[in-house]
Amino acid sequence: MKAIQDLYPDDFSHCYGCGSRNTHGHQLKSFVEGSEVVARFTPSSHHMSVPGFVYGGLLASLVDCHAMATAASSEITDNVAPRFVTAVLHVEYLKPTPLGSELEIRGHVTERSARKAIVEMTVTVAGTVTVRANAVAVRMPKTMQS
Amino acid sequence: MKAIQDLYPDDFSHCYGCGSRNTHGHQLKSFVEGSEVVARFTPSSHHMSVPGFVYGGLLASLVDCHAMATAASSEITDNVAPRFVTAVLHVEYLKPTPLGSELEIRGHVTERSARKAIVEMTVTVAGTVTVRANAVAVRMPKTMQS
Repeated sequence: MKAIQDLYPDDFSHCYGCGSRNTHGHQLKSFVEGSEVVARFTPSSHHMSVPGFVYGGLLASLVDCHAMATAASSEITDNVAPRFVTAVLHVEYLKPTPLGSELEIRGHVTERSARKAIVEMTVTVAGTVTVRANAVAVRMPKTMQS
Repeated sequence: MKAIQDLYPDDFSHCYGCGSRNTHGHQLKSFVEGSEVVARFTPSSHHMSVPGFVYGGLLASLVDCHAMATAASSEITDNVAPRFVTAVLHVEYLKPTPLGSELEIRGHVTERSARKAIVEMTVTVAGTVTVRANAVAVRMPKTMQS
């Protein structure tokens, strides 16, 4: 099974967070698992906020990309996933996220219209939810496609 | 004048977004300017979402670190800025942020208690506000200081 991000059109596979063609980036990979979309990611040692804990900006970045993949997951046609972009991103850091373990990011769509989707997510590490987040994903506007 | 981040205690200067001791990171620098706190940052060419536009996760990361510096800015004592961490981060992407120019991030505190501060921010590029954001910053808990 391919990651949703690997089904984005080649011209839009350069995202720093999840683009397969961005060799500098995080290359997040999100997969459909039942009624949810799941990504697993192990931060590097330099992705810290303070020693021992994951940088909140990285967590925001991961849920951002994961939300766009989750929004696209049910609209894949002919092995191509449509590209959504973020209108709103809301992240609640429930507790510090320890560095050194794999993160599990789970997302599902709670509302959808023709143009947008609302995605809710959690980040779990070693069985504990440390982050809750939601995002408003919108179809990429034509102004970004030129 | 030193950046607020350069006044964080050495033990807490490793943040990927703004730590002076994180050589892999963004090293954001925020400065008090009148009643606001301002940072300027030029994204790298690989910090893209889709070609021509800045990655939203980077924008979230920058406002996150800038919010913590803004919260700390009025509590600097003996040239040491206290370390805040993010409880909530809310980012509204008003329009795509073009890549290739310097971003100006402005923040100010709108509410403050002994333990936390609420910070509102904008990101402006070439005179246009492309992002509005706010964050709840809390004093770093003892559990993160061991």
